[in-house]
Amino acid sequence: MAVSVCRIAHFNAAHRLFNPTFSDHENERVFGKCSNPNYHGHNYKLEVWVKGTIDPVTGYVIDLKVLKELIETEIEDRFDHKNLNLDTTEFKNLIPTAENICVVCWQLLRDKLDSGLILTVRLYETERNVVEYSGD
Amino acid sequence: MAVSVCRIAHFNAAHRLFNPTFSDHENERVFGKCSNPNYHGHNYKLEVWVKGTIDPVTGYVIDLKVLKELIETEIEDRFDHKNLNLDTTEFKNLIPTAENICVVCWQLLRDKLDSGLILTVRLYETERNVVEYSGD
Amino acid sequence: MAVSVCRIAHFNAAHRLFNPTFSDHENERVFGKCSNPNYHGHNYKLEVWVKGTIDPVTGYVIDLKVLKELIETEIEDRFDHKNLNLDTTEFKNLIPTAENICVVCWQLLRDKLDSGLILTVRLYETERNVVEYSGD
Amino acid sequence: MAVSVCRIAHFNAAHRLFNPTFSDHENERVFGKCSNPNYHGHNYKLEVWVKGTIDPVTGYVIDLKVLKELIETEIEDRFDHKNLNLDTTEFKNLIPTAENICVVCWQLLRDKLDSGLILTVRLYETERNVVEYSGD
Amino acid sequence: MAVSVCRIAHFNAAHRLFNPTFSDHENERVFGKCSNPNYHGHNYKLEVWVKGTIDPVTGYVIDLKVLKELIETEIEDRFDHKNLNLDTTEFKNLIPTAENICVVCWQLLRDKLDSGLILTVRLYETERNVVEYSGD
Amino acid sequence: MAVSVCRIAHFNAAHRLFNPTFSDHENERVFGKCSNPNYHGHNYKLEVWVKGTIDPVTGYVIDLKVLKELIETEIEDRFDHKNLNLDTTEFKNLIPTAENICVVCWQLLRDKLDSGLILTVRLYETERNVVEYSGD
Repeated sequence: MAVSVCRIAHFNAAHRLFNPTFSDHENERVFGKCSNPNYHGHNYKLEVWVKGTIDPVTGYVIDLKVLKELIETEIEDRFDHKNLNLDTTEFKNLIPTAENICVVCWQLLRDKLDSGLILTVRLYETERNVVEYSGD
Repeated sequence: MAVSVCRIAHFNAAHRLFNPTFSDHENERVFGKCSNPNYHGHNYKLEVWVKGTIDPVTGYVIDLKVLKELIETEIEDRFDHKNLNLDTTEFKNLIPTAENICVVCWQLLRDKLDSGLILTVRLYETERNVVEYSGD
Repeated sequence: MAVSVCRIAHFNAAHRLFNPTFSDHENERVFGKCSNPNYHGHNYKLEVWVKGTIDPVTGYVIDLKVLKELIETEIEDRFDHKNLNLDTTEFKNLIPTAENICVVCWQLLRDKLDSGLILTVRLYETERNVVEYSGD
Repeated sequence: MAVSVCRIAHFNAAHRLFNPTFSDHENERVFGKCSNPNYHGHNYKLEVWVKGTIDPVTGYVIDLKVLKELIETEIEDRFDHKNLNLDTTEFKNLIPTAENICVVCWQLLRDKLDSGLILTVRLYETERNVVEYSGD
Repeated sequence: MAVSVCRIAHFNAAHRLFNPTFSDHENERVFGKCSNPNYHGHNYKLEVWVKGTIDPVTGYVIDLKVLKELIETEIEDRFDHKNLNLDTTEFKNLIPTAENICVVCWQLLRDKLDSGLILTVRLYETERNVVEYSGD
Repeated sequence: MAVSVCRIAHFNAAHRLFNPTFSDHENERVFGKCSNPNYHGHNYKLEVWVKGTIDPVTGYVIDLKVLKELIETEIEDRFDHKNLNLDTTEFKNLIPTAENICVVCWQLLRDKLDSGLILTVRLYETERNVVEYSGD
């Protein structure tokens, strides 16, 4: 009996989209105002979905308190109130698009979860722009 | 042509997480403040997704008025403004975690739906804790 | 590495549910107040999900500005502030249920998207009634 | 001790903005796509706020079940799944802008409420357009 | 220059509406299913608004981290995951309607805030039932 | 007959809280992680409320299309996808707390609105932190 459980978290960060192999003009053409050299920022909302079987002793797939703390340690402590381009190792050589942030969050959490659990991460960059990754 | 339709409903209930085979100390250690002997409660939000083919005569997969009434009869009348531990038969011997509540809602609705329809139930226990079950 | 990205859009439209082969009485019986001959209306909310691989040069699956413009051209310009029954060709001979509107939006967008991208459309007719279609 | 209580309700309606003393061209210039002759529509969300003293016997300012039924009788039965221009007496000679709909809802509820209660009505025409009236 | 700032918090609690001077039948008549003897519960959402002047040295009316901690100490520690009727002193002799809970939260916070600040508390008992109190 | 109308808008920006007359240690003590020298960011949501009388010719207090364009010109073009500390003149010598951003938005809009209209601006910095200013 496979059930999915989800914990929702948030982090607020600055970022800038640009490709260092592009000219300034090319970055402006591809990324528009998202390439502002002085950065802009977002309230990122993260949905972390974990699918597995219910433990009959606890009624839990995973204790959501444990999942909440894992998200705090792996994601919030790393990215909250940070400049993704300047303050993190993950985006030193990776453009911090919503797609890439979502995949990085998935990888950071995947490494810490029991291998029997299936993980999906959904990231809201704004109310109208969303990304999801399941490791496919 | 398989389309999913969803009706959203709510019920407000008290519950307590505890395993009768645990000591008080063990219940406190595993379930924390959720094991408060005097109960606490939630506004549960339920998304009921039904997948099937569109009837060309009506343009419906299922009449959402019918689905709404089914949720009222099977779920809301049973659980709304109730104590899940004390007032229901379903959780007499089953810990009312969000996972188990979601599976029970799925089973109650599954019994009443045409077998050609695929059912998924998503349950929000809080704004940040969610569970989903599809019968896998 | 397959990632899904989503852009959310809105359109406000009038419609009426009725089957021209039904008697007035039959339309009233099947569609209830949704068959009001003078129409009623909704704020439709549309989630357009596109799944594909991340382009390493841009970090994008699809530029969301491009997807936003595609939704404006194909969906909003066609349906926003319109009467779906009277002002559109798509619903001249198709009952504008949420199911059919969702499938039509999927088809309009599918025709314009690269064939390597997987498309899912989710349509909220109200806060509590939702439909989703993935082309299955 | 003056406390405000609020009940939230919804109605879905078609409407059209136009002034019969205007030319078609003038209606188009002033109201834009909102003057589409075939109508468009909205999910209207209504917040009804009632301010008064708490009855120490019940702990209520007003029983929200009573307020809910009053909104159903006075507002929902009148406007839900209707064409505001064609199906109502209130907007036969009054342009159904969000402002005027809000004032009309306030007047309909004001007539039925105890004169000791202060009434405020807030109307959401879309997620981003809102109107409020307090009888000033 | 008077600016209002708001911090939003949550607590999940069980409660029951009943007046001990009423007969069972009278409690049932007045409070309906809210008087279930075994309790039900809610996710309460609390908006705490504080109005005052901006300190030019910090740009703050009040440090929202301080306000957040005050709400945790005064409200969440007291009411979260509790049975309001059984586990609190505040509702031993006061019916825990949304109105009374809102006024009690206001009083608890008012005692701890600088007297130069104006306080308003808004409490959501459900998505559709809300209460507000400003000390009038 | 005084009615309030509201238009909701958004802008995404980077910022940093610090007082240049403070030591680094003092900035860290007062502003915590909000003083990160490399900035962080938010999705700011802005509610612009305008109160006035309904024009009987149009049924409008103010044409919301006009208000929407005013917010775009005065607020979004100035602050969206910007670093508030580095890219704006308004916050060169003013700490960009939510309080100060709200007051600045109010002032920018106040200058462009008819003096007969009353203006209130509400700013959401996150889902849980909100500020409101009415010019008092």
